[in-house]
Amino acid sequence: MKEVCERFGYENYNASPLEPTELYEAKSGQEIVGNETYNMIDRGDRKVTIRPEMTPTVARMVADQMRELPKPIRWYSIPNLFRYERPQRGRLREHYQLNVDIFGTDSIYADVEVIQMGYEIMKNFGAQDNQFVININNRKIIQSLFETYLSDDSDIYAVSKIIDKKKKLSEEEFASSLEKYLGGNTADFITKLSVSSLNEIDFMPAEELEKTRQLIKKLQGSGITNVSFDLTLMRGFDYYTDIVFEFFDTHPENNRSLFGGGRYDDLLDIFGMEKIPAIGFGMGDVTARDFLETHGLMPDLASHTHLVIAAQDEDSLPLVQEVATELRDSGINVEIDFTFRKFEKVLAAADKKRVPFFIAVGKNEVTSKMYQVKDLTTGEKMDVDVRGIIETITGPKK
Amino acid sequence: MKEVCERFGYENYNASPLEPTELYEAKSGQEIVGNETYNMIDRGDRKVTIRPEMTPTVARMVADQMRELPKPIRWYSIPNLFRYERPQRGRLREHYQLNVDIFGTDSIYADVEVIQMGYEIMKNFGAQDNQFVININNRKIIQSLFETYLSDDSDIYAVSKIIDKKKKLSEEEFASSLEKYLGGNTADFITKLSVSSLNEIDFMPAEELEKTRQLIKKLQGSGITNVSFDLTLMRGFDYYTDIVFEFFDTHPENNRSLFGGGRYDDLLDIFGMEKIPAIGFGMGDVTARDFLETHGLMPDLASHTHLVIAAQDEDSLPLVQEVATELRDSGINVEIDFTFRKFEKVLAAADKKRVPFFIAVGKNEVTSKMYQVKDLTTGEKMDVDVRGIIETITGPKK
Repeated sequence: MKEVCERFGYENYNASPLEPTELYEAKSGQEIVGNETYNMIDRGDRKVTIRPEMTPTVARMVADQMRELPKPIRWYSIPNLFRYERPQRGRLREHYQLNVDIFGTDSIYADVEVIQMGYEIMKNFGAQDNQFVININNRKIIQSLFETYLSDDSDIYAVSKIIDKKKKLSEEEFASSLEKYLGGNTADFITKLSVSSLNEIDFMPAEELEKTRQLIKKLQGSGITNVSFDLTLMRGFDYYTDIVFEFFDTHPENNRSLFGGGRYDDLLDIFGMEKIPAIGFGMGDVTARDFLETHGLMPDLASHTHLVIAAQDEDSLPLVQEVATELRDSGINVEIDFTFRKFEKVLAAADKKRVPFFIAVGKNEVTSKMYQVKDLTTGEKMDVDVRGIIETITGPKK
Repeated sequence: MKEVCERFGYENYNASPLEPTELYEAKSGQEIVGNETYNMIDRGDRKVTIRPEMTPTVARMVADQMRELPKPIRWYSIPNLFRYERPQRGRLREHYQLNVDIFGTDSIYADVEVIQMGYEIMKNFGAQDNQFVININNRKIIQSLFETYLSDDSDIYAVSKIIDKKKKLSEEEFASSLEKYLGGNTADFITKLSVSSLNEIDFMPAEELEKTRQLIKKLQGSGITNVSFDLTLMRGFDYYTDIVFEFFDTHPENNRSLFGGGRYDDLLDIFGMEKIPAIGFGMGDVTARDFLETHGLMPDLASHTHLVIAAQDEDSLPLVQEVATELRDSGINVEIDFTFRKFEKVLAAADKKRVPFFIAVGKNEVTSKMYQVKDLTTGEKMDVDVRGIIETITGPKK
């Protein structure tokens, strides 16, 4: 995640996980603050919340520094977030979430860029194009559909929540849930909702649809073919104003939303600041892990330590320390074993920790200054001097 | 910090900042839990504390996994810690603290290793040997001095707190504070306390002093000369059992403890687990920053982005994207500017963000596929093809 963000010129930011509770009351909706956050009164009698999401924090940070920062602002962070909810697949009380945002531009190329970054992260994970799809919608289009059939804001909200749960409902359940709000128009509404392409939409002026069409076209032009329009895509947060998107797992055993985001041009307005256009997404570590495991893509996490050097006794330790210092100065991570156990035991421990190389130093090495490097992955052994150790480890093997 | 820890073969661990309050009641002493922590009752009616230090957490983690982990266990982490205290120089309510620990060995080489790591971190910061000193003490020696003069544990505790504050007291204040507990023995006690070398100590068997002497000798043998014995060094935490050490700033304007640690062989015992020998230290980011600023060593933090490429217009953007993709594949971090502003404005923004290189792409570049790379540090300009961009950025300049 970090690699892709930095490749695209995004800068890392960070913040305290403790925030004034009012930051969330302002925009996340009472549901989260009321039922899901960790809240406390601090020793200074302030209402404090451990952050359940990062967007309000970053929006405030941008608002505070808007005059000084060169725009557009490209920022990312991988904060830990906290929600008191029932732990279940894909949801834990604490999780880490990549947040990628670009502030200060309403260019369609900003939308292209952030979606492309999501795609590149998936590719960096080793995912194939057929293992996920990118669904795109535009809140303005669906809003116009809502307004054709519904006049009351609370009805629009209720219908959007039903559509958000569409995948979990049968066709009959879906229709009957909608009927309460749409009455005789339900069938007609469902037909309009089930368009499979932007070209079938007749309830909005063509020029309003053009931006969404252009976005999909430009993504396809950049080589991303697993992208499609989905008028039923809602995304939870109320602050999205325009484009929304979602990466969706196509595997039958993990057929769920992986992550998503959208454009939120009015968020700073909610904080009483000058409006600034913004688009971003959040990607949680737990859902990412579920995806990787489902598709057999979990990376093989070896140790960061390259080499364990074991000293046979007090007499060989000074040479071990001298060699270790030289290797460390060459960028090699070296653990010295000074337990003076049998070499086999040290080797077994190194192997268990997934350290790839091992050297034992005793009387012979002290005399000869030649070392046998054991490659614990292949079992291969090489007799070399210090320079040879460096070449063995930092060479093609590193 | 991270670099040095990994060079020495230490592995990174992490944990949630939320802990059950009882974890701290068990060992940090009521003072911290009672007055300085952020506490809350969670929605499941549990007493929860936002961690004020990492040692209880890591001790519990090691206790949980003691049977499976190959020993000795070398671990480091850079967690954020929280204390509700008056913000002041060197102290904030949230700070990050490197924690380095080695568990499962009582070898003196473990003591040497962790102190050496602290020294290497200071050197890695650019510090000179005369900018700091490493003070070493042994709790067992000072305990034996206490027991010669005091029989009551609470008196020993009170006297150790007075010695801990010695540097902040005048000679008279120090003596009169001690007098309350030591009476007529005060002068004698102060004389015994002010030894400048281990060789002057006569109140403990020589063999008991030998370990401390060996430690200092081995540190000096590894090239660390700014190390000395200090019988008045206490260190706050009650769980230290043996060696304690402290890195101290020698600058007259920042004459204070930078960080320290010690051996705590009984900590797991407090959790009701089998004892395991351990030594480690904690180094806070705020005190580290004060040191760096005082000594003019703050690193020059340039952007992680290597290059900004600006597109003149829609027509030049496809080429910009193509070049950016090729550069990103070569490990170069590239920001694309698609604002279509005047190039000077984009360049000024890149310079403000401390991005070192800039390229403008317009009609000429679309035709020629040659680019002028501007080095924003030197002002130098180079006309090159894509390969040339890669060489300019990843070459000697990177």
